[in-house]
Amino acid sequence: MIKLEKPSIEAALKSLPSWVLSEDGLSIGRVYRFEDFNAAFGFMTRVALMADKMDHHPEWFNVYNKVNVTLTTHDAGGVTMKDIELAVFCDAASGT
Amino acid sequence: MIKLEKPSIEAALKSLPSWVLSEDGLSIGRVYRFEDFNAAFGFMTRVALMADKMDHHPEWFNVYNKVNVTLTTHDAGGVTMKDIELAVFCDAASGT
Repeated sequence: MIKLEKPSIEAALKSLPSWVLSEDGLSIGRVYRFEDFNAAFGFMTRVALMADKMDHHPEWFNVYNKVNVTLTTHDAGGVTMKDIELAVFCDAASGT
Repeated sequence: MIKLEKPSIEAALKSLPSWVLSEDGLSIGRVYRFEDFNAAFGFMTRVALMADKMDHHPEWFNVYNKVNVTLTTHDAGGVTMKDIELAVFCDAASGT
């Protein structure tokens, strides 16, 4: 997987408007808010199954109905197409 | 639920040796390390089902095989027996 440069990431994020590139340019992130914990963890479970299948895993924080997702590709030292792909899946899985 | 004072929390943590009281005394936390993401998320799923049943939810961060769990009772403004109970369950669910 090849690390994407900033212009490529910004182009990809045009179709992922709720995601933001980190200040250091090495990860992308989004905060999701759901109705309750059950909905939040349902989302996390859908993403976990896909992440394990892709062998590409999120960094995420959850408290009650809120989930903060951060995506980066450690092996590549930055954002790759795997992160974009998982971000697209997260949005689909969240219903947003 | 009544907020526990520091001596009561410290007494309860004697049977939860891997858990630590936060510096402000308002939460307890533990870091778990598993074999891989699958094992980490399996643990999170077991805890999520219990948390939703108890209507008492963790704050937690996961990256790959690591899970940081923080427990506090917002309604009580600190640590209650609900947190101790969920901590005991977390240890049981983690197999540690």
